[in-house]
Amino acid sequence: MDTHEPLINTEALWQDIAAIRQKRPLVHNITNYVVMNSTANALLALGASPVMAHSVDEVEDMVSLAGMLGGALVINIGTLSKPWIAAMEVGMAAARQHRVPIVFDPVGAGATGFRTDTCKRLLAASPAAVIRGNGSEIMALLDDSVQTKGVDAAAGGDPAAAARACAQAYGCVVCASGAVDYISDGATDLHNRSGHPLMARVTGMGCTATAIIGAFAAVNANAFEATAHAMAAMGLAGELAASQAAGPGSLQLHFYDALYNLNKEQLI
Amino acid sequence: MDTHEPLINTEALWQDIAAIRQKRPLVHNITNYVVMNSTANALLALGASPVMAHSVDEVEDMVSLAGMLGGALVINIGTLSKPWIAAMEVGMAAARQHRVPIVFDPVGAGATGFRTDTCKRLLAASPAAVIRGNGSEIMALLDDSVQTKGVDAAAGGDPAAAARACAQAYGCVVCASGAVDYISDGATDLHNRSGHPLMARVTGMGCTATAIIGAFAAVNANAFEATAHAMAAMGLAGELAASQAAGPGSLQLHFYDALYNLNKEQLI
Amino acid sequence: MDTHEPLINTEALWQDIAAIRQKRPLVHNITNYVVMNSTANALLALGASPVMAHSVDEVEDMVSLAGMLGGALVINIGTLSKPWIAAMEVGMAAARQHRVPIVFDPVGAGATGFRTDTCKRLLAASPAAVIRGNGSEIMALLDDSVQTKGVDAAAGGDPAAAARACAQAYGCVVCASGAVDYISDGATDLHNRSGHPLMARVTGMGCTATAIIGAFAAVNANAFEATAHAMAAMGLAGELAASQAAGPGSLQLHFYDALYNLNKEQLI
Repeated sequence: MDTHEPLINTEALWQDIAAIRQKRPLVHNITNYVVMNSTANALLALGASPVMAHSVDEVEDMVSLAGMLGGALVINIGTLSKPWIAAMEVGMAAARQHRVPIVFDPVGAGATGFRTDTCKRLLAASPAAVIRGNGSEIMALLDDSVQTKGVDAAAGGDPAAAARACAQAYGCVVCASGAVDYISDGATDLHNRSGHPLMARVTGMGCTATAIIGAFAAVNANAFEATAHAMAAMGLAGELAASQAAGPGSLQLHFYDALYNLNKEQLI
Repeated sequence: MDTHEPLINTEALWQDIAAIRQKRPLVHNITNYVVMNSTANALLALGASPVMAHSVDEVEDMVSLAGMLGGALVINIGTLSKPWIAAMEVGMAAARQHRVPIVFDPVGAGATGFRTDTCKRLLAASPAAVIRGNGSEIMALLDDSVQTKGVDAAAGGDPAAAARACAQAYGCVVCASGAVDYISDGATDLHNRSGHPLMARVTGMGCTATAIIGAFAAVNANAFEATAHAMAAMGLAGELAASQAAGPGSLQLHFYDALYNLNKEQLI
Repeated sequence: MDTHEPLINTEALWQDIAAIRQKRPLVHNITNYVVMNSTANALLALGASPVMAHSVDEVEDMVSLAGMLGGALVINIGTLSKPWIAAMEVGMAAARQHRVPIVFDPVGAGATGFRTDTCKRLLAASPAAVIRGNGSEIMALLDDSVQTKGVDAAAGGDPAAAARACAQAYGCVVCASGAVDYISDGATDLHNRSGHPLMARVTGMGCTATAIIGAFAAVNANAFEATAHAMAAMGLAGELAASQAAGPGSLQLHFYDALYNLNKEQLI
């Protein structure tokens, strides 16, 4: 297959950021306990309106509200259990019905069969617009033989090829993130190199990337662009934060400040 | 109805802060996953003793302990599900029995019928001492036709009137918080203007206000005063934090430091 | 009984820290909602690989993975409920089978019978390698008559004696932490005095200590040494953080940075 590697259009990236700040899209998260606070803070810092709701008694209503207000649904399986799977199923089905983009994070796929199987089943029932994970998680969605070391990227494998194959298999945009983020829609690939190694020492930075893709997908119907813009903005905020940080504690603080203060000049 | 707008008595406010620091009241929270960490940190910074317990197998015992030690019960429906509603029912009933003040946060009331109905049912069974929400949440407790955009304040409506009407309907003190906090017991209204817009970019600042009202209610039996003092202290800490902050990340850090360091001179 | 109080061997402590940074052991936490984020951040800052998984559908697989990769299992009952107890039982049994060290935190034991009884039952079924709690929690594991004020240490009692008695009763290493950390294996006692009072104003610092013991237990098969090294490193990071902090907010940030930057010279 012929692929080319487009550059991120900083003008279009800036338009998305401005749109998020102006429209404050509702990003409905059914996510894990570990990152609820930190992803809500990242979404608020960026300008979006996060909401967390996971009961089967209300996810359909909340997704419908996201549909009316032009929002997105973020599904993250980081601390999975059966009642949450039920809510994810209902929420994802409602998102398809209300044309709300689904951004899916297969946290720890490959670490246990429970996670891998749940991801495959959820995505088969209600296809996502975007899947973001680290390389080994993306590989696990393709192949049961991959075993992840918890939520960290396993060594080896080819994340670029995995992203492309996963995009083709699931019919959506896939981002295999890491030192380089490999974004593919199955035909076109884009590599984002923004970011900083210290970001991996703050829990949930991957989950935050997924949530931020949700905010961009809410304002940009082109899921490939939304993903590329989100990863570029995320990485840039991380770089700005790292330049002021003495460790992962100060990195996280400056990351929120950087997301809040992102301006057009910084993007160029 | 005749209402007047009293000023906050800074001497009485200081007495409450000093009492919290000296007595370290147990504030039992049945709250949402997003803010458990941040509200516990705010309570500790202020000088109170937070505890989180939500199992029906122990909420009664924990509320009873709060009763013996002169504490409070904070109920927050931010990430509601049926098992938690059951615990809230039991906890609130026990609080009434043990004369433990209940402070209630109807997070997202109006966004889904599940949330609105649950609030109304819980409050009907066991009246709260104080209800704190944003304007649209408070309106939702009065009227099913209000629909909230997630957990953010909806535009329009009159939060001052909503606070007063809600206080009359529920027979308790109500605070509709925002740029101005409208506090009412149904007869007397008080408007608190301390605070800073950047606080809205940190997740759970409203929930933190509710938890802090819990700490003040534990040491001041006058729920109207406790609420006014809590909102004044909260807003002042937010202003002090904002004066040092470059964005929401640094605001949150300085907010905890400011709560911890609040002194009498700053109140005047 | 004759006891002596050995000093911490800073060379051996440094070897453990270097081993954690090199091996990045998987620390599987079944822990409470309040501290999931902050303990994951502490483990990442130190160099370990945290994973949170609590569903009965996967805890066995995740513990088995920890076994293959040389990790540890941390059990923390801070926001206990029945489905989580079931997962703890399964996880602890799997840890025994796979020879994965269990580090146990009896948060709030003594505050309710539910917590105290659950701790005793879990520990009887699958003995831990290390138990860490505050003095009153450790006492509660010995005696039902102790009642804890939430998760704070009760006044009175002799935590050193409690740690020793608890170590004898449960056949493991016990740390009763506080201004002084009393560590005992039932025969040998060690007192760690590193740390700073401001650490008690950040929620979950005790839980963080427990998680960090998990990281050390993963690389050092001597549970007594692992516990002493973890508490020494924890306290040192807290002291370094406190020297730069203006309150609990800045303390927490600097604590993560200090854990990340710990070097051999600081240990001496």
